Amino acid sequence: MDDHSFKRAPRPSTISLGDLEAFGRGAALLGAGGGGDPYVGRLVLEHELSRGGQIEIVELASIADDAWVVPVCVMGAPTVMIEKAPSVDAFVLALRKLEERLGKRADYLIPLEIGGINSTVPLALSARLGLPVVNADGMGRAFPEIQMVTFGIGGNNISPIVVADEFGDVIEVTARSNLVGERLSRSAVAQMGGSAQVVLYPMSGLQAKRTAIPDTLRLALDIGRAITINSDEAPEDRLFAALGKLDRPRRGCVLFKGKVSDVQRETRGGFNFGTVRIERLRHSEDTLEIVFQNENLVAYHNGVPVALTPDIIAIVDSETAEPITTETLKFGQRVKVLGITAPDLLVTPEAIKVVGPRAFGIDLDYAPLRIGGSPSIATGG
Amino acid sequence: MDDHSFKRAPRPSTISLGDLEAFGRGAALLGAGGGGDPYVGRLVLEHELSRGGQIEIVELASIADDAWVVPVCVMGAPTVMIEKAPSVDAFVLALRKLEERLGKRADYLIPLEIGGINSTVPLALSARLGLPVVNADGMGRAFPEIQMVTFGIGGNNISPIVVADEFGDVIEVTARSNLVGERLSRSAVAQMGGSAQVVLYPMSGLQAKRTAIPDTLRLALDIGRAITINSDEAPEDRLFAALGKLDRPRRGCVLFKGKVSDVQRETRGGFNFGTVRIERLRHSEDTLEIVFQNENLVAYHNGVPVALTPDIIAIVDSETAEPITTETLKFGQRVKVLGITAPDLLVTPEAIKVVGPRAFGIDLDYAPLRIGGSPSIATGG
Repeated sequence: MDDHSFKRAPRPSTISLGDLEAFGRGAALLGAGGGGDPYVGRLVLEHELSRGGQIEIVELASIADDAWVVPVCVMGAPTVMIEKAPSVDAFVLALRKLEERLGKRADYLIPLEIGGINSTVPLALSARLGLPVVNADGMGRAFPEIQMVTFGIGGNNISPIVVADEFGDVIEVTARSNLVGERLSRSAVAQMGGSAQVVLYPMSGLQAKRTAIPDTLRLALDIGRAITINSDEAPEDRLFAALGKLDRPRRGCVLFKGKVSDVQRETRGGFNFGTVRIERLRHSEDTLEIVFQNENLVAYHNGVPVALTPDIIAIVDSETAEPITTETLKFGQRVKVLGITAPDLLVTPEAIKVVGPRAFGIDLDYAPLRIGGSPSIATGG
Repeated sequence: MDDHSFKRAPRPSTISLGDLEAFGRGAALLGAGGGGDPYVGRLVLEHELSRGGQIEIVELASIADDAWVVPVCVMGAPTVMIEKAPSVDAFVLALRKLEERLGKRADYLIPLEIGGINSTVPLALSARLGLPVVNADGMGRAFPEIQMVTFGIGGNNISPIVVADEFGDVIEVTARSNLVGERLSRSAVAQMGGSAQVVLYPMSGLQAKRTAIPDTLRLALDIGRAITINSDEAPEDRLFAALGKLDRPRRGCVLFKGKVSDVQRETRGGFNFGTVRIERLRHSEDTLEIVFQNENLVAYHNGVPVALTPDIIAIVDSETAEPITTETLKFGQRVKVLGITAPDLLVTPEAIKVVGPRAFGIDLDYAPLRIGGSPSIATGG
């Protein structure tokens, strides 16, 4: 290991004010273009910490089988959340309703997904209530729909889903399937102004240990720090090094480098749908096109798919590796596109049915990200 | 009183199979053009009665102050309900969820509204569960929205609202206001396929006695029988006689007689919006135009408003007085248009804010129906 390599941080037992920028940045990168603007989540969390709140983070493996673990998320269009910040009060309301309903108090919170907003709001709720957060989540990235999560793929029931807004309105959904739960909640969220606070998939500690993706809060912080550290080394190399140091190592690569030449975007049914086209500098015939639904789903290099959901496709600033979410893509941005292998739990046959390309209406079989030696992957520019 | 006059029926303590046709017809007339096709409600109720179910009907004044009374209704577009019949199973599910939530069992059911479908489904649920139904409702007619009800006008909370579908999906809404409760439930119903089963405004016997409109199930049966009876007397005269025999007598008149010459109709946001134009036979310049949103809201005689919500505007077959709902209006139908005064509880200043013309975006002050001697009311034909 040389001097410039990224140093693995100890597993955090908390995240403090000084970590928030790095943490939000790392989470946004894992968000694969979705998960919302990390700044929004950070503001909410900073507010809680500045009021004296503390975050306690615990390891997935350490929680008791009979503990009660509650996933939390903000649901809605990230573009809406920029103007309508997540409400910690509404989260408290949703959690209390769930507790009342099930007749027990939550022992732990767990993020439903990792992304700019949804990795930070559980921390804000943790700080408000003094309730520990599990260092894990249900996606290891962001996905647009709430049935696209290892908690559900692993057999947990999405219901009851409790949806709350900042005015005290609460909708509780009990659905025949996790997919119907998504649809019914989505429509409630739309009616609540396009964004709302949600608790769902209440589960035991045993179920959480069987179905959650471990160590993702730590990974977000490590990645954020890797990007932030000022060194001569390319930030993405430090980032890839952080991936390699996971208990179950993952890999990353640069898929493409170039300039954003076109962004097609449309908000429909509460989602941001679109396509971004990136051209290689001085070689405009060499392109990478990425299709997204909130998150980046498929990258086509000159028409050939080179990265597919659930592998992570992240667009970052060419120089700083700052992640760029799909709603902030602009013509002319100089970017690198990174590919990161998905966690094991997302690439089982059951998982691919729920989070693979066909789950998004894309008529392609999932093929794992190939790193190194592939003639179809261009890194020049 | 002459021999041909309508004879007041004794207050019913049940409604049997033989009454259903008359009851459905009377309820549809009170439904003011809305409330759905009475045939749909009748089928559901007949099914329950044919399985041996019995309906017990109790008087509003007789229920105990501390009894627990639960209003029930089907919510959605009547055009959808023609194809997607109300589900008694889903009603049972919704009621059980509400009971579980509030930790007590319902003592009585009460219809939210009187109309072709919503006066019969509470009876079907009563027959299924052996739970008595109160001879009263919250509208004395039909209205398109669930905050347009004396239960709410009188100060009861619409929440919790429990919405269930025939697949076992349940949505529970707790809303900051009755109007927001309507919006959030409406969107849930739309997502459930355009029609769903709802329980709401759970209240004490005391609250029910203060806010419900009494005797409306009996009135529906009386009106239905008045229309059905084969006599030389015009059916509407027998109908008006039935209104006059209420404890708090009401009045009716023929507003117009003619032929349907135009129907404009549009389904939007789960409602049937539209306008129907009726021309006097051989005097096509003499017209009555009725604006509706599920229910008939305003009647304009040659451009002058002559009847306004909450007074009941009912379109009936010219010969038989069979009520015609807004979704079954057709060009060429020979019709009479009846006006019926609203119950007292609907014309208080508080009620007019919720169910008067302006509540429907119609820029007119409410003026009570004028019966007899008005030059603006034509009955010729």
